Order: sequence, then structure tokens, then C-alpha cells
Amino acid sequence: MNEFTNRVPDATIRRLSLYLRFLEDFERSGVTSVASGALAERGGTTAAQVRKDLSYLGSFGKRGLGYSVAELTGVLRGVLGLDTVWRVALLGAGRIGTALFEYEPFRARGFNITTVIDNDPRKVGTCLGDITIRGEDELEQALCQESIDLVIVAVPVPVAQALVERVVAVGVKAILNYAPTQLRLPDDVALRNVSMLVELEGLSYSLARSQR
Amino acid sequence: MNEFTNRVPDATIRRLSLYLRFLEDFERSGVTSVASGALAERGGTTAAQVRKDLSYLGSFGKRGLGYSVAELTGVLRGVLGLDTVWRVALLGAGRIGTALFEYEPFRARGFNITTVIDNDPRKVGTCLGDITIRGEDELEQALCQESIDLVIVAVPVPVAQALVERVVAVGVKAILNYAPTQLRLPDDVALRNVSMLVELEGLSYSLARSQR
Repeated sequence: MNEFTNRVPDATIRRLSLYLRFLEDFERSGVTSVASGALAERGGTTAAQVRKDLSYLGSFGKRGLGYSVAELTGVLRGVLGLDTVWRVALLGAGRIGTALFEYEPFRARGFNITTVIDNDPRKVGTCLGDITIRGEDELEQALCQESIDLVIVAVPVPVAQALVERVVAVGVKAILNYAPTQLRLPDDVALRNVSMLVELEGLSYSLARSQR
Repeated sequence: MNEFTNRVPDATIRRLSLYLRFLEDFERSGVTSVASGALAERGGTTAAQVRKDLSYLGSFGKRGLGYSVAELTGVLRGVLGLDTVWRVALLGAGRIGTALFEYEPFRARGFNITTVIDNDPRKVGTCLGDITIRGEDELEQALCQESIDLVIVAVPVPVAQALVERVVAVGVKAILNYAPTQLRLPDDVALRNVSMLVELEGLSYSLARSQR
């Protein structure tokens, strides 16, 4: 993986995730090699884009023969950090948090939620799956004890920023944010936002525009 | 809104959504005008980017005086299609679908879920909030009767593509997709994907990279 030292654009990383999903589908259907065009078609992009995206990973694939599904799947899993189990803490055991906790594909991908934190005293001490929910006062202790790599933020907006500052202070370097707010984090912390409203508003923009 | 006829890039639309959120915060705190720098700081971007994004909306804001919070809020709501109530159908009343249904900010933004469809016979006929869940065999009828503008897809991957083809066939032009798959749709249908896994994999990429 020596070739893979430059920063890859976020948009490429997102497409690599999708290509991996398609390759796994191909693998399940018994397909052993695919052309860039086949990946492009599934991904709604062009063969040239697929080749460019994959060129970040080094050079493989044979002209005219396409990519080995097994090889490319392995490379993508490695690049995307999916050959490791990541220890994940969930902040917020409300409706969104609970749905995330029970979302099976997270675990299947190696994202293992080992810690759940909530500030509701009626929830603290109760179980979510096999995890006992802990209070916010135990946040730092829990993150350290459990060697947490990644934190999922599913708390209300007014408390989100203060909580992630505590998370970052103990050294966590990756945050997945579901709170509909822009978190301010140090540059060395990776942040991804999943905003249902932002995507919905992209659609209402398109609808409104088509009616003008 | 005559100036606003060119296609605005998706990344700009996303930032406009965020700016609107920040402006609403400012409005609640009694702030009446803001400089591009203040929006940039909240959004983790630059003042030049903010000015460029807002330039798509036409020319307003006074050099040195900044933008009127009330005026810009109104313009953004209009551009993003948030001065209208959109009629929304939810496909899939599983855990994700139910969490979305009960997500209050959707309604507050004018996204009104009036139809819920599920293929589980134990769910059909039962209530989700004030909506009676209908079966998949009633899909087309429900979409037409309810004049649905936008469909949220929260069904398992294997059934997603076939269902959205039926949705598109009755003329729906906007799809918010939660199924972790790339839907193939006609060009005139707006599609946004909310993928929890893709964002998580972006983070595991960063984590894996920092450990190399």
C-alpha cells in the first residue's frame, strides 16, 4: 500500500465505498472479473472516472481483462480500513441513536459499538442490546477504558459541540455526526456529517426549481 | 428570483442549507445582520466561498454592512423550496423508516409525510402516528391520491430498485434514498442518498491512513 500515501479526495473515497458494495454484489453472483464500465454503470458514473478513482490505489487491472473482483475487493477493504474492527461509542440513545445501534451493516463492516452514553437518568443503567447505557459523567472514563476509535454523535444540537470537545480532548480522531449542526473540531480529527435535512433540502430545491 | 436560473452546484446547495441553519440561529439570538466571515466561521469555510455561494442568488448584502439576516433567511428559504409544504411518502416502516417518520425537524421544514407503505402484512393497516400503513400493492394508488411530491426510500436493498421504478412511473420527481445501494433513475428525477455506511467508511479510511 506504499503508493497510497497522497490524500485522496473525499468524493473519491465515497465512490470507493460504493465500488466496494458493487464488487461484493458481483462476488456473491460469482463474477470473477469486471471492467471499469460495469462499475461505472452501477455507480452512475463513467469508466474514465472509475479508472481515475482506482488509480489512487496503485496500478492493477489489465487492459481488456478488467479488474479481478477478489483482488480489488481486498484492496478496497484495506484502503477503507475495513480489515480492522473499530471500537465505536454512541452518544445519545434516542430514536436515531437506537436505530443506528441496531443497524446490522455497521457491525458487519467491523464497526463495533461497545459504549453507549446518554444523559437521561431513566436510561442510564438500562441495556441497549448487550451494552449497559452509561451517563454523560462517565464519558471520558468510558472512552478510555474501551479504547474507542470513533464516536457517533446522535444527541440534540444544543449539547453536541460541548460533548464532542470532551471526546476530542481524550484523543478520539474520528466523529460521525448526526446532529444537524456544524461541529467545530481540530484539523486532525476526521469528521463526517449525515444530515437528513440537508439532503432533503437539496431535493426541495430541485422540486421548487422545476416548478419555477 | 429571476437571476436564479442557472444550475447551482450540489456542493453549493448543501452549503446554502447550512447557512440557512446558521442564520436561523443568529435570528433567534437577535442578530440582525451578519458578515460573510461570520457565516464562514460557523460553516468551516472561507468568506470568499460564502460570497461566491450567495452570488448564485443574485446580488444583495452591502459591502461593509454584511447581509440582513431576515432578508437572507427569506431568500434561502425560497431558493431551497422551504416556503412550500411538500407531500412525502415513506417506503418502509422498519426501524430506520420509523425513526425518520418521528423526526420532528422534517415536519418543521415543511416535509409532511402523508403516506407510509410497507410490505409486512403485520404492519399494513396499523398506525404510525396518525397515518395508516398501506401495503405495497397500494403504492401507485396512494402516491396519486395523496399527490406525493417526494418519496423517502427506507426499504431493504433487494427490493429498492423495483419499488422506485414504480414510484418514478407515476411521476414522482424527487427521491431520498436510505437503502445502501445506488438507484438507477431517469435524469429528470432528483436523487439524494443518505448512506450511513459510506460516511463511516470515510472515517475508517482516515483512521487507517493515520495508522499507516
